Amino acid sequence: MRVDDKPYRTIWVEDDGWSVGIIDQTLLPHDFVTCRLLSMEDAARAIADMLVRGAPLIGATAAYGVCLAMREDASDENLAYAYDTLFATRPTAVNLSWALDDMRKHLSDVPVGDRVATAYKRAAEICNEDVAISESIGRHGLDLVQALAAHKPAGEPVNILTHCNAGWLATVDWGTATAPIYMAHEAGIPVHVWVDETRPRNQGASLTAWELGQHRIPHTLITDNAGGHLMQHGLVDMCIVGTDRTTAQGDVCNKIGTYLKALAAQDNGVPFYVALPSTTIDWQAGNGVADIPIEQRSGEEVSHISGADEHGARKVIRISPSDTPIRNDAFDVTPARLVTGLITERGLVDANRTALAAAFPDLSDS
Amino acid sequence: MRVDDKPYRTIWVEDDGWSVGIIDQTLLPHDFVTCRLLSMEDAARAIADMLVRGAPLIGATAAYGVCLAMREDASDENLAYAYDTLFATRPTAVNLSWALDDMRKHLSDVPVGDRVATAYKRAAEICNEDVAISESIGRHGLDLVQALAAHKPAGEPVNILTHCNAGWLATVDWGTATAPIYMAHEAGIPVHVWVDETRPRNQGASLTAWELGQHRIPHTLITDNAGGHLMQHGLVDMCIVGTDRTTAQGDVCNKIGTYLKALAAQDNGVPFYVALPSTTIDWQAGNGVADIPIEQRSGEEVSHISGADEHGARKVIRISPSDTPIRNDAFDVTPARLVTGLITERGLVDANRTALAAAFPDLSDS
Repeated sequence: MRVDDKPYRTIWVEDDGWSVGIIDQTLLPHDFVTCRLLSMEDAARAIADMLVRGAPLIGATAAYGVCLAMREDASDENLAYAYDTLFATRPTAVNLSWALDDMRKHLSDVPVGDRVATAYKRAAEICNEDVAISESIGRHGLDLVQALAAHKPAGEPVNILTHCNAGWLATVDWGTATAPIYMAHEAGIPVHVWVDETRPRNQGASLTAWELGQHRIPHTLITDNAGGHLMQHGLVDMCIVGTDRTTAQGDVCNKIGTYLKALAAQDNGVPFYVALPSTTIDWQAGNGVADIPIEQRSGEEVSHISGADEHGARKVIRISPSDTPIRNDAFDVTPARLVTGLITERGLVDANRTALAAAFPDLSDS
Repeated sequence: MRVDDKPYRTIWVEDDGWSVGIIDQTLLPHDFVTCRLLSMEDAARAIADMLVRGAPLIGATAAYGVCLAMREDASDENLAYAYDTLFATRPTAVNLSWALDDMRKHLSDVPVGDRVATAYKRAAEICNEDVAISESIGRHGLDLVQALAAHKPAGEPVNILTHCNAGWLATVDWGTATAPIYMAHEAGIPVHVWVDETRPRNQGASLTAWELGQHRIPHTLITDNAGGHLMQHGLVDMCIVGTDRTTAQGDVCNKIGTYLKALAAQDNGVPFYVALPSTTIDWQAGNGVADIPIEQRSGEEVSHISGADEHGARKVIRISPSDTPIRNDAFDVTPARLVTGLITERGLVDANRTALAAAFPDLSDS
């Protein structure tokens, strides 16, 4: 997608042919800064310190971390060390272990002298596969946007609400929830995005608003509290959100607050879609509310907010009394009954066990 | 209620017998500062700049604004001027016009020379009546808390979720939504309050958390996104919120985001109560979603957040890109069908036209 009118991916090999470029997402939306990763340790730090975030991008960064490790020392010992170091950065990220397993599988049986070339080749494939998945999700979601546009007066945009950042910044390109939006925009369909702020980490206000703005997609930032009211007044045509984990019966674990938007969508007859690569389906989990443990994060994420002061300097402020107890659940689960459909790389799938198993017979247990 | 273990109301006549003391609520929770209002213009500014907020407290402040105006010039012209000036501060607040109408009614037929004394007398009555109303609401709400406590294992608190600040800071004392909580606490019933942060102005994080903390009520701050998740996991026994305006059919206009919590409460079988003085019932309005115009406020309330830096100094930071378009609706409407009951000064009333008219035959049109 575009930044300052120049096309970017979120991760790339630099012109030197080996160092790895990323965007330091911790500085967004205030500063657009790219960094070069020169070692496996750089890659590990980029993941651990959230310079890169989003399951697919974490996986891609870990893959390039293995490349950088092989370049320094392609021995079995160093491959194992790189695997362990990178794995420890964000142990709950499913894509991280998937990408590391994949890299190890591709490298183990390759002579040490060929490992650097093989690693870079495979990391590039992982990135391209991720882009292909996002493009597929985008094309299937585009059909849904197009269908809604057909019922709108000419020139009136399709209003799409999204929560958190399931944008291109979270993937290698296109994003998941945003892929249909970018594709509709390219196809000349007028779209307008309601961007949920997404407390407590404000990924909507800081990342989604930024990436949509850079790509010149019309959008409006709103508080997380506002979506229901907008739906009551006919101002939302559809919701598209991402997901960290979807269960085999179609329950959707996503950023805290997603469930509330799904309830409002149902109450107002607004279709509620979840965009996801099939890699995020947890075929072992059934009832999401009962089965998925929810990460509790530091209360400081709620009490302290970071932003730019009037001079553009980064500042952290506290909004609540200093001794207030805080609870900070990072995710919630939207039951499948509230989900209109799952937009996957294989098309639109109903959020239930039968439909998911039918769409992914190669992946599901049944 | 208590601040630093000393009892306070939110508005009082100072020892000089005429100037009016208030708490500058814009400085909470970081600094507890009281101010003296010396003129009608001071009172108007205190309302417009939200040093005081909350429908009942706005009404009380407007009443004292009329007192201060009469003290300067008790003529009919100045009474009309004070009425208009104070009315213009927050045109959508029903209590504001109610208090101003009431003051005008009590003053119009009184000789100019008696108006100052009459005004102060009537303003004090308005305050005392408001406290009596809150106490009534508290007693009726206490019954509901008590009933829930009876089904809890001994010592386990009743978990009450509230949104925004319908606390004593919003009234003259006790609050509306908080009155049952304070009364339950005084009665020795263990309660625990989930405090919604309440973006964009963070009244929960800054005011409700502060006042509950000062009064030593156990509470936990959460993001607005979290309530649904907590209800899914059985961690909320009841919701109690306030309201700015309730229609004759029981639709409830309250701080943006209230509707989302009501949906989650219904989805999880959690009772959802609205505490209100009957003065906030708008007998002319029927369908709240259709009939109540919603104030749109500055986008800066969303993009810019104020708090204390690590040295305790007040700072304002921006969280979104500087050119992001923002929409900021201040309120939403919760349809009566989602409201378990209205806790009024006359008891618990079902949220429908018949029940409201029966409870308030003297006020309703029917």
